Amino acid sequence: MKVIELKASVTASNDRDADRLRELLKEKGVFLVNIMSSPGSGKTTLLSKVIRDLHDRLKIAVLEADIESAVDAERIEALGAKAIQVHTDGMCHMDAGMTRRGLEEMGLEDVDLAFLENVGNLICPAEFDTGAVKDVMILSVPEGDDKPLKYPLMFSKADVLVVSKVDALPYFDFDVEACKKRVKRLNPDIEIFFVSAKTGEGMDALEAYFLNKVKAFQG
Amino acid sequence: MKVIELKASVTASNDRDADRLRELLKEKGVFLVNIMSSPGSGKTTLLSKVIRDLHDRLKIAVLEADIESAVDAERIEALGAKAIQVHTDGMCHMDAGMTRRGLEEMGLEDVDLAFLENVGNLICPAEFDTGAVKDVMILSVPEGDDKPLKYPLMFSKADVLVVSKVDALPYFDFDVEACKKRVKRLNPDIEIFFVSAKTGEGMDALEAYFLNKVKAFQG
Repeated sequence: MKVIELKASVTASNDRDADRLRELLKEKGVFLVNIMSSPGSGKTTLLSKVIRDLHDRLKIAVLEADIESAVDAERIEALGAKAIQVHTDGMCHMDAGMTRRGLEEMGLEDVDLAFLENVGNLICPAEFDTGAVKDVMILSVPEGDDKPLKYPLMFSKADVLVVSKVDALPYFDFDVEACKKRVKRLNPDIEIFFVSAKTGEGMDALEAYFLNKVKAFQG
Repeated sequence: MKVIELKASVTASNDRDADRLRELLKEKGVFLVNIMSSPGSGKTTLLSKVIRDLHDRLKIAVLEADIESAVDAERIEALGAKAIQVHTDGMCHMDAGMTRRGLEEMGLEDVDLAFLENVGNLICPAEFDTGAVKDVMILSVPEGDDKPLKYPLMFSKADVLVVSKVDALPYFDFDVEACKKRVKRLNPDIEIFFVSAKTGEGMDALEAYFLNKVKAFQG
C-alpha cells in the first residue's frame, strides 16, 4: 500500500489566550467543558438530557458553536438553561479568543457548569485549546469503532470519551472492546462512558462525573 | 436568541489548478467523483458495494484521503480495485494540487471511474474545488435531518446527495421529507438518492447514475 504524506499549513498558537481564559474561569468558579464530535453524534441531545437531570443541582449554560443556524441553542434555551449561539463564519473550530468572546456575551454570573458545543468536526477542534477545563469527545455508535485509527489527535487530546447512542448497538457492527483498546492505546488516562441519552443508559455515571468535577473545582 | 458572527480566515483559491486537473481528466477519459461526508457516514462501505457491483463494467479506482491510517485503502484494495491512500498531515480537506498528486502517483491508465474519498468533514472540503467532475455528499440517517441547516455550504455545492444507512430509518428520528425540503431549498438542482449499502436498497439507481455519467463523459 502506497502512502503519501502531504504537508498541512501551520495553525497559529492560542495557548496563552487559553491559559488566561482558564484563570478567569477558575476565579469565577465556572467549570467549562469543551464538547467535540462529528456532526450528528448527538451532542445537543446529550446536553439536553444532562440539563434536565442536573438543573436543580447545578446552574448550567451552553455556548453553541455552528457555521450557521441557531437550532441547537434554541433547543437548549427551551429547557430553561442559559444558551448562546456563536456563528463561526465557515471556520471549522473554536479557539480560545472566540470562546472567551462568546462566554462574555453570555455572561459568567450564575454559572457552575458551562458547555462549549464545538463545531461538528473530528479534526480542526482537536488542534485548538479553547481554554476549557476538560475536553470531552463524543463518538456515536453508528460512526464505527475504527474512528480512533483515523482521527488519533482527537482521541489523544480528550480527557473523556463518551460513546453515545449505545441503544443502537444491536443494529451496527461496533466492537466495544476493539474500540476501547484502540482508544486506550492512544490515551491510557482517558475516562470512557457508554451512554444513551434516549434510554438513559449510562447517564447516571456521566452526570456524577460532572457533579464531582464541578464540586472539586469550586472547592 | 443572541447570535454572534465571528470572522473566518481567508482560504487560498485553487480554482485554476482544479480546472487544469479537470482538463487532464477529460483528456484521459477518467470521470472523477469527489465524495464528502462526516466521519462514519459509510463512505468506504458504499464504495465497496459500488466496486463489487460495477467492476465488470467499469475500471474503478479510489483515492483515499485521511489524516492517518490506511484501513480504507486496504479495504478497497482487497476488492481488487486500484487504490491509493493519501495522508493529509492533519489537514482537514483535499485541494486540487493534492488530488492531482495522488492521482498521478496512482496512475490514470485503465481507469474509467475514480473516486476521491475526501477527509471525513462537512466543513473544510466544501470550500475547495478538488478538480472532480462531480461532487457527491453522503449524509447517513443516524446523523439527523437537520444537517442541511448547519452545514449549508456542503449541501449547496454538492451535485448529488446520497442519504445512506436507510436500513436504520426505523431506529432514528429522521424525517425524510423535511430533509429533502431543506436540501432542495439550498440546492434546487441536486439529485438525491436514498440507499443502504448493507441491504442493497436504492443501490441500482445510484449505480445507473454513475454508469450513465461515465458513458456520456467518455463520449
